[in-house]
Amino acid sequence: MRASQFYISTLKEAPSDAEIVSHKLMMRAGFIKKLSAGIYNYMPMGLRVIRKIENVIREEMNRAGAIELSMPVVQPAELWHETGRFDKMGDELLRFKDRHNRDFIIQPTSEEVVTDIVRQDLRSYRQLPKNLYQIQTKFRDERRPRFGIMRGREFTMKDAYSFHTSFEDLQREYQNMFSAYSRIFTRLGLEFRAVAADTGAIGGTGSHEFHVIAETGEDAIAYNPDSEYAANVELAEAMAPAAVRPTAQAELVKVHTPGAKTIEQLAAFLKLSATQTLKSVVVDGEDGIPVLLLLRGDHELNEVKASKLAGVFSPLRFASPTTIRDAFGSEPGSLGPIGFKGRIYADRAVSAMADFVIGANENDYHFTGANLVRDFPEPEFADIRNVVAGDPSPDGKGQLAICRGIEVGHIFQLRTRYSEAMGCKFIGEDGKEQIMEMGCYGVGVTRIMGAAIEQNFDDRGIIWPDSIAPFQIVICPMGWSRSEAVRNAANALHAELLAAGIDVIIDDRDERPGVMFADWELVGVPHRVVIGDRGLKEGQAEYQGRRDTEATKVNITDIVSFIKTKLGQ
Amino acid sequence: MRASQFYISTLKEAPSDAEIVSHKLMMRAGFIKKLSAGIYNYMPMGLRVIRKIENVIREEMNRAGAIELSMPVVQPAELWHETGRFDKMGDELLRFKDRHNRDFIIQPTSEEVVTDIVRQDLRSYRQLPKNLYQIQTKFRDERRPRFGIMRGREFTMKDAYSFHTSFEDLQREYQNMFSAYSRIFTRLGLEFRAVAADTGAIGGTGSHEFHVIAETGEDAIAYNPDSEYAANVELAEAMAPAAVRPTAQAELVKVHTPGAKTIEQLAAFLKLSATQTLKSVVVDGEDGIPVLLLLRGDHELNEVKASKLAGVFSPLRFASPTTIRDAFGSEPGSLGPIGFKGRIYADRAVSAMADFVIGANENDYHFTGANLVRDFPEPEFADIRNVVAGDPSPDGKGQLAICRGIEVGHIFQLRTRYSEAMGCKFIGEDGKEQIMEMGCYGVGVTRIMGAAIEQNFDDRGIIWPDSIAPFQIVICPMGWSRSEAVRNAANALHAELLAAGIDVIIDDRDERPGVMFADWELVGVPHRVVIGDRGLKEGQAEYQGRRDTEATKVNITDIVSFIKTKLGQ
Repeated sequence: MRASQFYISTLKEAPSDAEIVSHKLMMRAGFIKKLSAGIYNYMPMGLRVIRKIENVIREEMNRAGAIELSMPVVQPAELWHETGRFDKMGDELLRFKDRHNRDFIIQPTSEEVVTDIVRQDLRSYRQLPKNLYQIQTKFRDERRPRFGIMRGREFTMKDAYSFHTSFEDLQREYQNMFSAYSRIFTRLGLEFRAVAADTGAIGGTGSHEFHVIAETGEDAIAYNPDSEYAANVELAEAMAPAAVRPTAQAELVKVHTPGAKTIEQLAAFLKLSATQTLKSVVVDGEDGIPVLLLLRGDHELNEVKASKLAGVFSPLRFASPTTIRDAFGSEPGSLGPIGFKGRIYADRAVSAMADFVIGANENDYHFTGANLVRDFPEPEFADIRNVVAGDPSPDGKGQLAICRGIEVGHIFQLRTRYSEAMGCKFIGEDGKEQIMEMGCYGVGVTRIMGAAIEQNFDDRGIIWPDSIAPFQIVICPMGWSRSEAVRNAANALHAELLAAGIDVIIDDRDERPGVMFADWELVGVPHRVVIGDRGLKEGQAEYQGRRDTEATKVNITDIVSFIKTKLGQ
Repeated sequence: MRASQFYISTLKEAPSDAEIVSHKLMMRAGFIKKLSAGIYNYMPMGLRVIRKIENVIREEMNRAGAIELSMPVVQPAELWHETGRFDKMGDELLRFKDRHNRDFIIQPTSEEVVTDIVRQDLRSYRQLPKNLYQIQTKFRDERRPRFGIMRGREFTMKDAYSFHTSFEDLQREYQNMFSAYSRIFTRLGLEFRAVAADTGAIGGTGSHEFHVIAETGEDAIAYNPDSEYAANVELAEAMAPAAVRPTAQAELVKVHTPGAKTIEQLAAFLKLSATQTLKSVVVDGEDGIPVLLLLRGDHELNEVKASKLAGVFSPLRFASPTTIRDAFGSEPGSLGPIGFKGRIYADRAVSAMADFVIGANENDYHFTGANLVRDFPEPEFADIRNVVAGDPSPDGKGQLAICRGIEVGHIFQLRTRYSEAMGCKFIGEDGKEQIMEMGCYGVGVTRIMGAAIEQNFDDRGIIWPDSIAPFQIVICPMGWSRSEAVRNAANALHAELLAAGIDVIIDDRDERPGVMFADWELVGVPHRVVIGDRGLKEGQAEYQGRRDTEATKVNITDIVSFIKTKLGQ
């Protein structure tokens, strides 16, 4: 490709409504252009990336035995009434009427349509299993679209749906898709992690999210660097500590702690670590009597976990100041278990604590040297906190680390939710009619483009992985219009790389080196070759990888094989 | 591909609402499945055809220098207000409101959005010309969708838009696109014709339609088999006859013609050819006085041409029986020019007639032996009829033939209609601001699938051109489960053909030969190899092309090269 014949449109400044780095860089580098809130044109540079992502996904889905089809963007309401989603879904489901006043929607996903196809076509166990997928335009009328194409309204998704004669076969295909997704994200050149997306009783395989690891990610993920274990921080189990509780050493002493209402203030005032304090949280109970939750001072309450405790009102509701005053006789900030008559839960970590600080249920007073059993009855222990780095891994194989991620894929065992509602049945080997088991498997195609940037950028711009870069390599000739030798050498290299099947662009715009370099660094082309008169005299060109701090001189005669090596060919 | 792992769903009967052959065959062969009126799922078999069509289009558009991007399916009304199309377009423009009550449409085409992109990005003559295209889902809310995907509501279209500094440059790109379209339809393996889509003053290059030739086509096309000339029958010019008018021989005689009201009845009654009669058509004039139009009896009035005549009311309106009786003194069926005082136009072909039959303006009476000048004043001559086969070609290079076609492409010189309305300007070399010239170029991707079938089928099913067949070749093993030798030979051939890059499917469903052959002939795979025990004993397989009436025995050792030759490789 020649830059003069392509569509390059870079901006010095990102528009003011671009909040996150991928959005800013995609706008500046001319990958997308806003048409309306959450609705973007995929410009030529961006579309090249999207097509490459689509192709990797398509190849791996086909390799895994899934079959591509395409379902309409515009779908009639009737099918959506069958599953109840027409009414149940919120305003993000875009509904409209056609010229004959019939109800339609724009597909956010296609469970209904694919189930309608399968219930018409596949009637025998011999025709199953089947996994059908599409790469298609989706629409979700987000109330507040943001982050560019990361949370847009119109987007491209790969959605697959599998149909099975048994739960066992669904589980087999789920594993098959898990492997396919791992291959997809590996080939895309992204650091990623499969994350259990439910609390998952034993096995916990009902649903996994695939996250691209990025500091700017929306989700916090707990993972074990030494094993496959990973879960959303809010779902990861905080295990009971292995350590045995030390024997009580200190005496219980009531101390005046004026103004120390938070754990931070208390620890600072007493010159202790927060790990030596106990945090008291009061929530409403089912019977109207408040429930006290105790956590180690440096730990955070996990509201999802706490809301599942017996006797606790669900969804979780923090007790009002009045309720607290009535039950404890003091204000929040000085609360504690000693003297409290209601139900008490303590996080498992508390079970290994001794000689700790707790509120005295008297304003501006705390107890130091408090101990379980000796000073108040041992509470019920439960997992009620978010895990932190260093916690034991629930799989027993080491310690957890925490990272942030962007969800780009989700696989899910739907079971019979849709097939039951829509009567999607087959005749089994025994001649009896049965409901099909279903799985569904999504990948956010356009979201991957954003996530890849969030993972790979610097202050000069994007740094694409080779596999999805809009161009793998750019040739920058110094003095295009001035030097025939440079033009000839650059054109020859361009032709040679094209012939080798390498996706190359030559910058024949006759721009100054500074403009050229800034453009291609912003765009994020991962490899660059500079050809200039000075180098040519010595038979050399200059190669520089997008992450390299310095250029490497390479003999012109070796440059093609050098680049092939760099591209791993 | 293995048939057992693919999605094959053939039907014995087409659904009753399928009217035309392509719709019936696509439904029966499992290429499409109806979701709602004019809205179809592209099933795996059909999607393979669509993707191949898209790839040919994409390659040729890229080769022609066009640049691919993708514009949203859902577009905000604001841009459509700028050009007035939001209000001007009929109900086929699907309008709806989002959750914030803002107006949106689903794109039927994208002139507004692409012009909005270009007016933001391209400001200098140095950035022009550019030709931007997309292959994208379109929606037109047809009042009466029919013919399957030939006139559906949701469909896929390739739409390209070019931007230029001058009309001359637009004309250059128009020719470039004309050539690209010719390459596209040639590579798709379709018989097609480019048809001038306007009456076209000199040059007539403002708009061309590309038609796939098929007897079932909606449009009649007049073309010159010996030149490039082709036009919609309604637009093709009927030239003045080269022949000189013969001298009058017969005398004017009034004859009683009871019941002979049509040309057919009159010719039969008088035992004459219709070419010896004159047809009188009376239309309203602009001034309220009726105008008489004369045509040779076997010719058809062209209403578009007639409506452009001076003094004729436009749009054309046939005179009422009362008007006719008042002006002619007789009923329709016996009308003629003798004695009529109003304006008379005669088709050019009439200028070469002598001794003809005309109505006598007296019920059930006609004149025979009538002649121009001698019996009534010579009328004004004009082109007011449809051309017929054998007419002289307007390009002066022979005679016209007539065929029927299906429009699958349209190229158009938009000029400044959109760029003017939306202020799409550039700074010229002279530093002055100018409006851009625009062209647009459409191809109906999904329509091509239907048109290809209308052109290529027989009573057993579809006959795909090699380039867009869902599979190029099918291997049919006789006795899959019974014979290991057959399985081994079939699998080996399958692997060899795949390795050679040939798109092959092996039918491993263990169906009876009759079912297998019927399925693949219906689906339309153009090449078939049958492998059976009997042939294997002689080291042979049987090859049969989809249009062949007999199979050819080929040595197993030669079969791959034999197939490559058949595929033109």
